[in-house]
Amino acid sequence: MRRSIATVSLSGSLPDKLTAIAAAGFDGVEIFDSDLVTGRMSPEEVRSRAADLGLSIDLYQPFRDFEAVPPPVLERNLRRAEHKFAVMQRLGATCMLVCSSVSPDSVDDDALAAEQLHTLAERAAQHGIRIAYEALAWGRHVNDYLHAWRIVRAADHPNLGLCLDSFHILARDTDPYAIETIPAEKIFFLQLADAPALPMDVLYWSRHYRCFPGQGDLDVAGLVGHVLRAGYDGPLSLEVFNDIFRQAAAMRTAQDAMRSLVALEEEVGQRLAPESRPASLAKAPPAVVPSGFAFAELAAPDTGPLGDLLTALGFARTGVHTSKPVELWEQNEARILLNTGSPESQDGPVLGAIGLESPDPAASVERAEALLAPVLPRTRAPEDVPLDAVAAPDGTELFFCRTGRPDHPSWTDDFRRDPGEAGTGEITHIDHVALAQPWHHFDEASLFYRSVLGLQPHESLELPDPYGLMRSRAVSTEDGRVRIALNVAYVGARDGAPDAAWQHVALASTDIVATVRRLQAAGAARLAIPDNYYDDLEARYDLGTERHRLLRELGLLYDRDEHGEFLHFYTATTGRVFFEVVQRLGGYRGYGAPNAPVRLAAQHAERDGRRRGTRSRPS
Amino acid sequence: MRRSIATVSLSGSLPDKLTAIAAAGFDGVEIFDSDLVTGRMSPEEVRSRAADLGLSIDLYQPFRDFEAVPPPVLERNLRRAEHKFAVMQRLGATCMLVCSSVSPDSVDDDALAAEQLHTLAERAAQHGIRIAYEALAWGRHVNDYLHAWRIVRAADHPNLGLCLDSFHILARDTDPYAIETIPAEKIFFLQLADAPALPMDVLYWSRHYRCFPGQGDLDVAGLVGHVLRAGYDGPLSLEVFNDIFRQAAAMRTAQDAMRSLVALEEEVGQRLAPESRPASLAKAPPAVVPSGFAFAELAAPDTGPLGDLLTALGFARTGVHTSKPVELWEQNEARILLNTGSPESQDGPVLGAIGLESPDPAASVERAEALLAPVLPRTRAPEDVPLDAVAAPDGTELFFCRTGRPDHPSWTDDFRRDPGEAGTGEITHIDHVALAQPWHHFDEASLFYRSVLGLQPHESLELPDPYGLMRSRAVSTEDGRVRIALNVAYVGARDGAPDAAWQHVALASTDIVATVRRLQAAGAARLAIPDNYYDDLEARYDLGTERHRLLRELGLLYDRDEHGEFLHFYTATTGRVFFEVVQRLGGYRGYGAPNAPVRLAAQHAERDGRRRGTRSRPS
Repeated sequence: MRRSIATVSLSGSLPDKLTAIAAAGFDGVEIFDSDLVTGRMSPEEVRSRAADLGLSIDLYQPFRDFEAVPPPVLERNLRRAEHKFAVMQRLGATCMLVCSSVSPDSVDDDALAAEQLHTLAERAAQHGIRIAYEALAWGRHVNDYLHAWRIVRAADHPNLGLCLDSFHILARDTDPYAIETIPAEKIFFLQLADAPALPMDVLYWSRHYRCFPGQGDLDVAGLVGHVLRAGYDGPLSLEVFNDIFRQAAAMRTAQDAMRSLVALEEEVGQRLAPESRPASLAKAPPAVVPSGFAFAELAAPDTGPLGDLLTALGFARTGVHTSKPVELWEQNEARILLNTGSPESQDGPVLGAIGLESPDPAASVERAEALLAPVLPRTRAPEDVPLDAVAAPDGTELFFCRTGRPDHPSWTDDFRRDPGEAGTGEITHIDHVALAQPWHHFDEASLFYRSVLGLQPHESLELPDPYGLMRSRAVSTEDGRVRIALNVAYVGARDGAPDAAWQHVALASTDIVATVRRLQAAGAARLAIPDNYYDDLEARYDLGTERHRLLRELGLLYDRDEHGEFLHFYTATTGRVFFEVVQRLGGYRGYGAPNAPVRLAAQHAERDGRRRGTRSRPS
Repeated sequence: MRRSIATVSLSGSLPDKLTAIAAAGFDGVEIFDSDLVTGRMSPEEVRSRAADLGLSIDLYQPFRDFEAVPPPVLERNLRRAEHKFAVMQRLGATCMLVCSSVSPDSVDDDALAAEQLHTLAERAAQHGIRIAYEALAWGRHVNDYLHAWRIVRAADHPNLGLCLDSFHILARDTDPYAIETIPAEKIFFLQLADAPALPMDVLYWSRHYRCFPGQGDLDVAGLVGHVLRAGYDGPLSLEVFNDIFRQAAAMRTAQDAMRSLVALEEEVGQRLAPESRPASLAKAPPAVVPSGFAFAELAAPDTGPLGDLLTALGFARTGVHTSKPVELWEQNEARILLNTGSPESQDGPVLGAIGLESPDPAASVERAEALLAPVLPRTRAPEDVPLDAVAAPDGTELFFCRTGRPDHPSWTDDFRRDPGEAGTGEITHIDHVALAQPWHHFDEASLFYRSVLGLQPHESLELPDPYGLMRSRAVSTEDGRVRIALNVAYVGARDGAPDAAWQHVALASTDIVATVRRLQAAGAARLAIPDNYYDDLEARYDLGTERHRLLRELGLLYDRDEHGEFLHFYTATTGRVFFEVVQRLGGYRGYGAPNAPVRLAAQHAERDGRRRGTRSRPS
């Protein structure tokens, strides 16, 4: 299928938008009226620029408040339309979006609407232009696609058809099934947008919170299926307005948009019966779901403090990379790399890379590439094992690995082994990693992990931090062997307030009490949990005196869900990084979110304490 | 009246919140449960810190999901309450907020709710604690204060009363009049919050968009009037959660909160009949509404380019300050100061100060001081005229002046007069100034101008900028002689996107065509308006061929409202500053907002052009 996007979906000037849209691989654009009106390029210049970039101009939009008005208003509206037809001819655009009127001038009279739209279509036809009539979800009299279709059918003009828009249809919970009853030649255009389920007025929701398909909660793929079964073969065109995309860089948003369309087409293809599946639907190589964490790599200016902490946690250093300043630390299946050669590590340790176990690393990269993830060139020595890596939206490097399998070279072969053994404590593997996301790219990130890696997104949570709400969303494999928590400041960057862009690696312990005691014996600093937390825990749960005493004494946090219980604690933070140790009892599925405010407050207090030169109280 | 605020209204750690609250002059606090639970201070430490700061602990809040539940749940809830009573005793708090249940465990049975609340009150009484029951606007069965009152009356326990909350009552459009039927001794507490009218679910609205009274659209003062007429004499307590306040500095938010309460009490006092007006209601000295602009002061590294521009606009330099590097430029009643001695001017010109004509400058400052505006100390030579100034929330200095009046020294006397005359062109006075606001302080700013200067806030507008929505709100005197437009990025700071924090001075011309020609003759650069704008203007309005031709030729923008027409144009930007020239025809009241997107796009293009080293096309 041809792929289009409305220029209003991106930020910047019209020429910059066109460049970004072409670079992301789109076939066409919808020119947003205001982008043309406010810009310096003449319609002729836009036309030739688009042509040079290989973009067709698929739609000019929107033309508002036209139909079902008294005769003098109709005259003014036709005059206005003629001016826009002239602009469209200079632009080389042949389809104009007319959205249903919101004007108080309009009356609730379908016959009048049909008659006036017929007149408009007749005028348009003289310029070789077609009119695509769309029911806005908040249209004054027409707000439902079937109503718009009745008017278009009654108007009965070859140059008048429908524009369908997934947001306008799905936001009002209209059943999209009846789309299949509309003749294909009367569906002139299809606009696609998603939105998160938010409890607000549909106009406010649309203006501020639309997102690309797959980033929200609407069944856009289902809707596209109905439109394709109706026989539509025009472009799939994205039209999104969103407070955040409006501020983000156009190149990046265009790539995110394209990733969304590729993933959408794939989903549509999977859900359509073979006979109604157009051959032109994109087919990306299938997602290769990772089966676990191979490693987490921390970039640090020196390995000393992190090495001490890992030792206290029961890890042992097992090797050094043959060609890079990277150490391997292991405990059972939990592996941590310490990299002192990375330039990012100047402000203290950061979590720079994650290794994921893949059944087929080359196929993982192929999938990522098809979904526009930047594939990372690796500087490596000739003798190194080839490592396949891509960059996640926040810059984290994702490596696809097969650790110690006979069918594939193992990345661990690049390490000169130390004489000692791997740690054999209670920590068995990496339970999850938590990554702080740049706030403009949160929706992009969850779509990335879902589409590139086939992870399932979970519910989006609001976590109170002392300096603002955090949004948190986990993505995971079905079996929970790969879990990634994505965190972001809820609203805007934090001018003047300390940020909480901490990252962490959560390690699974089979006996968290033993792990705590091990840390205590080694004198390693943990994040101090206030006594007040334990008073509150006793108010909330009756776990028995002895268990409450033990949790308080050991500084463990507690949570439960309908499947089981969760015990966890945190180490002190170094740079942007800390470790969490978790023990899941029963089938607990969460991440201890109710305890996040306690952690965040304690981390701010720890940081403030360090700034004031006092030591944080060891627990 | 005593003044309180909930700790949840501010950002940071509990001790920092208490310090900020005391510094802003509050008498008491509501301790938010989570602020205590996540903090390191024990309840005893909080108690003694509050006492040291002179703050009473007026409420502990909230206790959730208590009433109308089956017996085993009741047992758990009472156990939970006993734990919280113990914490409250350590804290020295004697009133607990219980909000109406949202739990699926609760049933719709008022008698059961009353019976269980009676039990809770009886337990509370044993600890000397009172229970204030509040109807949440989204309570499962109880969401209306009269419903809560029926339950409290039925429970009939001296330790059980009501907590009234302006948001919960007004957000649901409940009539607050019936508050007057509730016995005063049964109103245990009064929480106050405002909110802008936003079309969304009340819970979502409450969580993210509450603001301080006077910053939103709810009639908080009217509600307080009813509560006072009922005989309530407890504290007026602010409880606001807002995505932006959560990220702002606590000290500043606390001051903003106090300003809101003082202004609220004043409004309540004005609306209450003398016999029901408590003597303890704050009385601030009355607002002194300014009668015009005395001057606008631009700080600039040198006066050359701005002087040339002012000359081209028809201004003449009329004097130099006797003790500071400041020039005075005049044209009729329009006065511009150019200050080369300000440290802020390093990145090019900024609008640093505004002079306002005041009927009584000393009274203006007294008012500002009572409303917590920082009064600015002035470094001045002994012979200088004393100038009264305060700082607006964005740092702009506001001077209160009486220019050339016999009853007061005039600031113009500090200038050594040049031999020439003031300009006598078509520009008569300053029409308005537009100030870019720091995004965390937009609501604070509109409350500041309203309460300190007595200006009227107008509708809040959304203006599309190529790099994100802008919010714009004007404040003005009734007669329009002082108009200030406040602009801010709609959502968050703009990571990575160029910002649009331009400021400008709009000058009123009696003949804008003559002013344009004057600029053209002088070769001064104006902001280039694209031809596409004029094509669109012809589509929108039929102004006659000749008038359209003239607008296009001269590069003038056009708008109209129901009162009249508006012609305007902009100069090129220097530093953060540009000038606008406007001509109001008839009684036009706006600011040309429909043309703002064209201006913003053109200004970004002008800046990009400069960056690329090409000159912007002169118009």
